[in-house]
Amino acid sequence: MPRISAARVTDVRFPTSLQLDGSDAVNVDPDYSAAYLELVVDDPSWPRGYALVFTGGRGNEVVCSAIESVAALLPGRDVEDMLANLGEVSHALVHDSQFRWIGPEKGATHMAAGAVINALWDIKAKRAGKPLWRLLADSSPEELVDVVDFSHLHDALTRDDALEMLRAGQEGKAERIAELEANGYAAYTTGPGWLGYTDEKMQRLAREAVDAGFGMIKLKVAGNLADDQRRLRLAREAVGSEIGIAIDANQRWEVDEAADWINALGEFDLWWVEEPTSPDDILGHARIRREISPIPVATGEAVQNRIVFKQLLQAEAIDVMQIDATRVAGVNENIANLLLAAKFGVPVCPHAGGVGLCELVQHFSFFDYAVISRSQEKRMIEYVDHLHEHFAAPVRLRHGRYQAPTAPGIGAEILSDSVEQWTYPAGPGWSSLRA
Amino acid sequence: MPRISAARVTDVRFPTSLQLDGSDAVNVDPDYSAAYLELVVDDPSWPRGYALVFTGGRGNEVVCSAIESVAALLPGRDVEDMLANLGEVSHALVHDSQFRWIGPEKGATHMAAGAVINALWDIKAKRAGKPLWRLLADSSPEELVDVVDFSHLHDALTRDDALEMLRAGQEGKAERIAELEANGYAAYTTGPGWLGYTDEKMQRLAREAVDAGFGMIKLKVAGNLADDQRRLRLAREAVGSEIGIAIDANQRWEVDEAADWINALGEFDLWWVEEPTSPDDILGHARIRREISPIPVATGEAVQNRIVFKQLLQAEAIDVMQIDATRVAGVNENIANLLLAAKFGVPVCPHAGGVGLCELVQHFSFFDYAVISRSQEKRMIEYVDHLHEHFAAPVRLRHGRYQAPTAPGIGAEILSDSVEQWTYPAGPGWSSLRA
Repeated sequence: MPRISAARVTDVRFPTSLQLDGSDAVNVDPDYSAAYLELVVDDPSWPRGYALVFTGGRGNEVVCSAIESVAALLPGRDVEDMLANLGEVSHALVHDSQFRWIGPEKGATHMAAGAVINALWDIKAKRAGKPLWRLLADSSPEELVDVVDFSHLHDALTRDDALEMLRAGQEGKAERIAELEANGYAAYTTGPGWLGYTDEKMQRLAREAVDAGFGMIKLKVAGNLADDQRRLRLAREAVGSEIGIAIDANQRWEVDEAADWINALGEFDLWWVEEPTSPDDILGHARIRREISPIPVATGEAVQNRIVFKQLLQAEAIDVMQIDATRVAGVNENIANLLLAAKFGVPVCPHAGGVGLCELVQHFSFFDYAVISRSQEKRMIEYVDHLHEHFAAPVRLRHGRYQAPTAPGIGAEILSDSVEQWTYPAGPGWSSLRA
Repeated sequence: MPRISAARVTDVRFPTSLQLDGSDAVNVDPDYSAAYLELVVDDPSWPRGYALVFTGGRGNEVVCSAIESVAALLPGRDVEDMLANLGEVSHALVHDSQFRWIGPEKGATHMAAGAVINALWDIKAKRAGKPLWRLLADSSPEELVDVVDFSHLHDALTRDDALEMLRAGQEGKAERIAELEANGYAAYTTGPGWLGYTDEKMQRLAREAVDAGFGMIKLKVAGNLADDQRRLRLAREAVGSEIGIAIDANQRWEVDEAADWINALGEFDLWWVEEPTSPDDILGHARIRREISPIPVATGEAVQNRIVFKQLLQAEAIDVMQIDATRVAGVNENIANLLLAAKFGVPVCPHAGGVGLCELVQHFSFFDYAVISRSQEKRMIEYVDHLHEHFAAPVRLRHGRYQAPTAPGIGAEILSDSVEQWTYPAGPGWSSLRA
C-alpha cells in the first residue's frame, strides 16, 4: 500500500528585484519566489508530486514552514485512497480543528494547504497521464462536486446548483476540448507595464507585444496621476486603437479617491481597472465600480478564499474575476471559484506572472472553457515572459495564445538545477550575488 | 544608543484539550497555545518586551516562525527612537514590500506583526511605568493618531475624524479614569458554556457565575438544535430571568440556515448571537442580522483587520464588535478598531479566554471608556477562568468586574517556570504527558 514517505520543502527565490521586473505601486522590489513542495511516495514506481506557493521574497520561509506543518496533517493512509477522496483530504487540511484558528482559510496557512492539496493533484494527474485541465475536464460532474467545499457558499451556490451546471457542461465538451487543443486560449501581457521601466522600454515592449499577437496589455498605475496619463498616452500611441489596455493599481487607492483618479484616465479606453483598493474591501470595490461605470473593475489575485469571491459577486463589485493558482486552497477551491463566477455570469481572467503562475493557472481557464463557462468571450489569461525556463513543462505561447498544456501533472515542477541554484539563502546563485 | 539585541520566540502550549475546556462546535479540541515573544534590548537597564499570539495548538509553530521573520524586519535603530515612532515602525512591518504578498494584513504573518509591535508597546509602557491602558489614556490625541494606520479606512474614518473624537474624549477623562480605577469594568463569562460539558456541570457553573457577580453568561451552540434548546432552557433555569445569556455558533452556520436556527432559540431572550457564520462573510452577517432582528449579532474574534471591521460597520452587519488582542496588527490596529466602532456607535465587547487574552484585551476596554466611547452601556469584557496563574500580572476580577490593571506593560508576560514547563514539544509538562 503506497504511502507518503516525505514532504520536502525548499525556499527558492529568484533575484528579480535586480531588474525591476514585477515592480508596481505597492510591490516595489519583489524577488519572485516559490515555497516549493515535493511529495514523495514510498513506492518508487509512483511519480513525485510537485507544488509551489508564489511569494514576493521575504516571508517565503514562513510559507515553507506552513507547508511543512500542513503536510504533517496528511492522513497516513493509502495514497491511492487519498487521491480518490481529495475533497475529504482537503477538508481535513483546511478545517483542522486546531490549525484553523490561524486563519480560518486565509494567509500563509491557507496557501500552504493549497500547496499540499495541489501536490496530490499533481500525483493524480501524472498517474492518469493527463495535464490537470484534461483530468478535470474528463471527470464526471459527481467527481467534481465531491472535491468542492461548499461550506459558506450555500446562499450563492449549492452542490445541486453545481451539479446542474456541470451536467450542462458535458454537452459539446469534446468539441470544445478539440478546439482548445487546436487553437489554445487568448493571453494578454503585463510585460511592458511595470512601473520600474522607462517610457522608451515600455513603448518598445508594448509594440513587441502587439507584434507577438497579444490582444491586450496591462500597465501598472497609481504612483502619480500625471505619470499615469503620460504613460497611458504613450502606450496607446504604441499599440494603436485596436489593442486593449488595462491598468492595475495594486490596491493603492482609498475607496473615496479611486473614482476621481480612474475617471481622469477614462479617455484612454480602459479595458479594466485592476485592484483599485484593498482586496479585503468588498463594499469598496462595489462603490468604486458604481462610480467609474462603464469602466470595468477586476480583482482577485489577493482574494483569500471563495467566501470573499462569493461576496464580490453578490455585491456586483467586479466585472472580471482574477483567480490565482497559489493563494487559495488548491485546485479544489479554484473549482469552487470557477463555478461561482459562472453562476453570476462573470468572466474569469486568471492572474499569472510571478514564478510558475502562468504554468499553473492556465489549466483553470482551459477547464473553465471545456466544462463550466463554455465561453472565451472577454476572457484571457495573463502572461508575463520571465522565469519559464526554470520549469520542467514551461508554458507554450503562439501568436499571443496559450497552447493547451499536454504534459501530465499540474505544471509546478521546477528543474532540479534551478532549485539547487536558487535555493535561498545557500544556493550558488545567491552566494555569487552576495560575493 | 539602545538597540534590540534578541527576539526570542517560544512555542508554548497548554494541554487544555484533555479537559474539553474551550470546546465548541468548530474548535473541538484546542490546546490553548501562545507563540511567545521576548524582545531584548542590549542595555540591561531596559525592560524586556513580551508579547504573544494565541492559537489553538497545531500551527503555533507557524506563527512562531512568522514572528521570527517579522522581527527580523525591525529597523536596527535606536529603540528610544522606535518607541517614539511606533506608527512608522508598524507601517514598516505591516506593509513590507516583499512580505505583504503573503497577506496582505491577514493570517499568520499579520498576527506575527501584531506580536512584534505589541512587544515594543510592552517596553514603552514599562519604561513609562504604566499599564498600557493608562499609557494610551494619558497620550495626546496627536500622539494617538500618529500610531494609527488609516489606510483603506478613509471612506469611513479619517485622521481628522479621529483627532476630533479623541479631542472630545479629553473632557472628563480624569473622572472616568478615577471611576475605572475605583470600580473596574463589567465582565461576562463563557466558563459554563463549552459544548464538552455535561448539562449538570453547565448548570452548576452557570449558578456559580451568577453568584460571582457576572451579569451575562455565554453558551456555545450550533452542534444540534434540540441540544441547544435544552441547554438554553437549563441555563435560563439556572441563572434566572435577570442575567443575560448570549450564544456563540463559532462560524458554524450557512448564511441561509442561520436565521431559522437562531429564531428557533428566540424564546430564551438572547443578548447576542456570536459568529453565526464565516468571519469573512460581511454580507452574510448583514443578511442574518436583518433576518433575526431584534436579536443582536456579534462578531470579531476572527476578523482579520480594520478593513473588514470597517465593512461590518458600514453594512450594518453587527450590533456588538468583538476585537481580539492578538489577531490584528497590535495595539495600533486595535486603536483604529475602537475608533471605527465609536464612529458608528457600536459597542465593543472584546473577545477573551484562550491564553492571555483576558490579560491583554482588558486594556482596550479601559482605554475605550477613558477616551473614546466614554460609555460602558451594553459593554462587557469576556472572561474565562483558566490559565491566569501562568501570568506575571494576572487579571483581577471582583464581583464580576475586571479591576483596572496596574502593572506596567501590556500584560503578556508569562512566568518563566510556565514557559519552561509547557514549551512544545520538549518541555517537561509535555514529556510527562507523553510518558
